[in-house]
Amino acid sequence: MAEKTSAEVIIGGKVYTLSGYEGEEYLQKVATYINNKLGEFQGMEELRHLSGDMKATLLQLNIADDYFKAKTQVEKLEREIEQKEKEIYDLKHDLISNQIKAESDEKARKELEEQNKELLINKAKLEASLEDALLGKVPGKDKTEE
Amino acid sequence: MAEKTSAEVIIGGKVYTLSGYEGEEYLQKVATYINNKLGEFQGMEELRHLSGDMKATLLQLNIADDYFKAKTQVEKLEREIEQKEKEIYDLKHDLISNQIKAESDEKARKELEEQNKELLINKAKLEASLEDALLGKVPGKDKTEE
Repeated sequence: MAEKTSAEVIIGGKVYTLSGYEGEEYLQKVATYINNKLGEFQGMEELRHLSGDMKATLLQLNIADDYFKAKTQVEKLEREIEQKEKEIYDLKHDLISNQIKAESDEKARKELEEQNKELLINKAKLEASLEDALLGKVPGKDKTEE
Repeated sequence: MAEKTSAEVIIGGKVYTLSGYEGEEYLQKVATYINNKLGEFQGMEELRHLSGDMKATLLQLNIADDYFKAKTQVEKLEREIEQKEKEIYDLKHDLISNQIKAESDEKARKELEEQNKELLINKAKLEASLEDALLGKVPGKDKTEE
């Protein structure tokens, strides 16, 4: 398992020592995110008269709003993935159906080719027989011409 | 556009009037989420000696952690969707290739069937000609038998 690490981060000008299973990079990223929010709050005239307590709660609400927005996005993406998985399943099903049909078509084509081949052999034989029969019919004529 | 609404929520026992474009249901959900976190914090012995300020920051960090976890999840799902879209693209490409091949196979099959049909007609004609030729060869015999 991951080892517990600790890191010093500065939030709102105060130093906090955080420990957890997350790396320092992650903890600094979270601290920076909160400091950016604090910076936004400081620039808002309408928040200036509020108590520190009130500001802290508003900041919590603001962060929680980001969280719920991201959570909603997760749910939306999960539904999208479900739809895409269904689409993939259907496409694979179509591909398999096509493959089965292609194999049966291939078999039918080979049979037709085989029949064709036999018919061509048969044709050659019939033509030879006919030639023999026709030649046999007028044997004298051939002989006279010789 | 959505209308601005305002709602009273209770966080940590204090009443806050929130206004925004979110519905009251959403604001209450966010407040409940924060109150649950506060409840968890109150049950933790190691946080009891901390100042209210410190606790508020820890709560912000905790919520921000939830946010970043959800954000990471969003990024992971977006990558998954990208992969699935690629898979769908490839499957559709395969289906189209198969369809083109199926159409060309169908054309080849029809040509073979046509050839077969012609060969069968040809065979019947040749057989008839051969019969005529063979019968013509021994015309006397037939007549004697009558």
